[in-house]
Amino acid sequence: MEIDAYSASIGLMRQSQLFTKTRREVPKDETSKNAQLLIRAGYIHKEMAGVYSYLPLGLGVLKNIEQIIRIALNAVGAQEVFMTTLQDPEIWKATNRWDDKIVDNWFKTKLKNDTEIGLATTHEEPLVRILKDHISSYKDLITETQLSIYQFQTKFRNELRSKSGIMRGREFMMKDQYSFHLSEKSFDNYYEMMARTYLSIFDKVGLGSVTVRTKASGGSFSKFSDEFQTFSDAGEDKIYLCDACKIAINNEIIQEQSSCISCLKPKENLLEKKSIEIGNIFPLKSKFTDAGGLKVKDSNGNDVSVLMGCYGIGLGRLMGTIVEVLSDEKGIVWPESVAPFKIHLLVLNEEQKLVADNLYEELKRREVAVLYDDRDISVGEKFADADLLGMPLRVLVSNKSITAGGYEVKGRSENVSKIMSVNELYSYCHV
Amino acid sequence: MEIDAYSASIGLMRQSQLFTKTRREVPKDETSKNAQLLIRAGYIHKEMAGVYSYLPLGLGVLKNIEQIIRIALNAVGAQEVFMTTLQDPEIWKATNRWDDKIVDNWFKTKLKNDTEIGLATTHEEPLVRILKDHISSYKDLITETQLSIYQFQTKFRNELRSKSGIMRGREFMMKDQYSFHLSEKSFDNYYEMMARTYLSIFDKVGLGSVTVRTKASGGSFSKFSDEFQTFSDAGEDKIYLCDACKIAINNEIIQEQSSCISCLKPKENLLEKKSIEIGNIFPLKSKFTDAGGLKVKDSNGNDVSVLMGCYGIGLGRLMGTIVEVLSDEKGIVWPESVAPFKIHLLVLNEEQKLVADNLYEELKRREVAVLYDDRDISVGEKFADADLLGMPLRVLVSNKSITAGGYEVKGRSENVSKIMSVNELYSYCHV
Repeated sequence: MEIDAYSASIGLMRQSQLFTKTRREVPKDETSKNAQLLIRAGYIHKEMAGVYSYLPLGLGVLKNIEQIIRIALNAVGAQEVFMTTLQDPEIWKATNRWDDKIVDNWFKTKLKNDTEIGLATTHEEPLVRILKDHISSYKDLITETQLSIYQFQTKFRNELRSKSGIMRGREFMMKDQYSFHLSEKSFDNYYEMMARTYLSIFDKVGLGSVTVRTKASGGSFSKFSDEFQTFSDAGEDKIYLCDACKIAINNEIIQEQSSCISCLKPKENLLEKKSIEIGNIFPLKSKFTDAGGLKVKDSNGNDVSVLMGCYGIGLGRLMGTIVEVLSDEKGIVWPESVAPFKIHLLVLNEEQKLVADNLYEELKRREVAVLYDDRDISVGEKFADADLLGMPLRVLVSNKSITAGGYEVKGRSENVSKIMSVNELYSYCHV
Repeated sequence: MEIDAYSASIGLMRQSQLFTKTRREVPKDETSKNAQLLIRAGYIHKEMAGVYSYLPLGLGVLKNIEQIIRIALNAVGAQEVFMTTLQDPEIWKATNRWDDKIVDNWFKTKLKNDTEIGLATTHEEPLVRILKDHISSYKDLITETQLSIYQFQTKFRNELRSKSGIMRGREFMMKDQYSFHLSEKSFDNYYEMMARTYLSIFDKVGLGSVTVRTKASGGSFSKFSDEFQTFSDAGEDKIYLCDACKIAINNEIIQEQSSCISCLKPKENLLEKKSIEIGNIFPLKSKFTDAGGLKVKDSNGNDVSVLMGCYGIGLGRLMGTIVEVLSDEKGIVWPESVAPFKIHLLVLNEEQKLVADNLYEELKRREVAVLYDDRDISVGEKFADADLLGMPLRVLVSNKSITAGGYEVKGRSENVSKIMSVNELYSYCHV
């Protein structure tokens, strides 16, 4: 119910009013399936390579994904903030991440007084500085929920190439999150809890059965970090899956491993799969807190280091992955949890308009998110658009349905429709 | 009920878990009241001049304002999108707004291949280009609701100076909106409807009685545009108010006018007031649509120009204005509609904890947004923080209230509390 909040606020929509139009032809400059389908369906608009605007239907999906993540994170006591894009170089110099030779994907710009500033690629440095104003004692880090802070904020990364549609953007919406701990044990517990939370989020958005936790390098910080990889031939990554444990190892660390991380099955028996990374979690030890000067007093009044973890999900990446993995030859197939509308209501022609109008009004009254195709076009076009746009349920008002005293209802992935009465439809939609 | 959606999703909050702390001392580098109070109360953090991060309580206010605006705009059929920050120079060259000598507040940056790109200061140009892919006929512009498109998106403006706190940012969240019309008459009707919508939005956020529609120059486009000005000594603007008509004239056009725009009262009798501009609406004629090449076919198949209007509200500006106008010597005073929490629940000491915990749980069950000060600090500090943070209702659990079988309830601007029973409290909170 909560996750319908955004759809409920775009409210109901008569398709004759929706300004976006679908198109049959594939955009010539897009090679990725996600960008091709999302542009054809009018969900997004390409501004330049790796930079996409979200149109009403696309924004609806993005907001639903955002809300699913927000609810999951609030439930574990994480606190939401909104940090800035413009970045003060000083805090990045302190961690040695300002120099373009070290971090090669900065966008930089200048204030009027010629001071060079950056566009945030990530937010460890500014958050550590913020915390210096607010936490000072070990007591601030032993709350029941643990200190964990997240945001939904645009990230800017100056990628050399960008041709995977909304899966790898130069500008993209990201949920980034950072947790802070006094001990390895507290960090480890939180990290494992976040791994479970991530799996539940990916399950909720419809990718649960094709997504696995994947061990990756921990860099200079730790033996491992974790990625969440979704099986897809469109993926840029390669993973090695233990079918028994449902845990994988990524390409980067398979050399060093002789077996599955969990059950010790020899690595020769792991399944090689192409995949898309839809999330990652990473232990950062005290690298950024120490460099940024964030310490807390312990119970004896001595300064102690603060351990940090980070947890990312790219929202566009996730939305693009859903399209890559679930779409079929006719178009997009949205899981109900992220679809901009639950129902796509179609009316065959003028004669049935009154019946359809009434159903539309009744669904409105019951706060069901419905897109009503009231346009004066052929039924063939309406069917093709419904398949392309990909709402979970297509509800058709036709002479056949009226005679039978109901509506023709078809799930997006089903091949046949069935007649449902009004009440059957409502109970099917849980309203 | 709808506007509580965000608060309901941050949910309830025990203040012992909230990572932000209040401070007594005024930040030395801030001269504006809004920044001083919002930083002291832990709502925002300054990253650099004119660039502020929003911390949990501040984001709560920002999201409430956003949702009030969203609901008002959806109700008049406007469609929400999310355009990009990174801007392709080509579309700005076409309207002659790329050159730094003409538009002097661009932030510019470069792609890896050295192409110069900009950070959006506004979004007329990209939206016109998007529409070229979607509208082509006069029929697309004669829908019942009119074609009107809006977004909440960060704007970047390279201001020479920035010292008004969140009221004039180099990076700030803006609601910008653009409408498209075939005729002057259709434009005029829409424009007047938007003026009424703006007044109702400002009323809803608590500034209705101190905000007036103000005639301003229409620039090269039109005789007038309209600003919405809030009376405040902190304002940078000066307006001339007709007390009878509740309409004002701004400083820019007072010279050219001899009287009130509406009732012809001579200008000498208008009241001069300092004010803050919290919104503006502007006729753009066909300047950007023509330059961007957006035309539609009329019923005879001929290309015709498209008229455009734009409608802006800076969310940080609005939030800062509420603080400037409504705060008192003790701290912030939030109107109920934008407060991050409706109730600030205080418990005096350990003895009453159980009663307070139970009330907290019951408010949780009823989905009332409540901040529960369960911290182990003095009651004086709790009272001072409650005044500084500014939630509409302070609810105190004390021996006195327990003996009387209820709670001590005080409105933020009231001087005395009164004892209310549980049921009185709930009905007072409309739950």
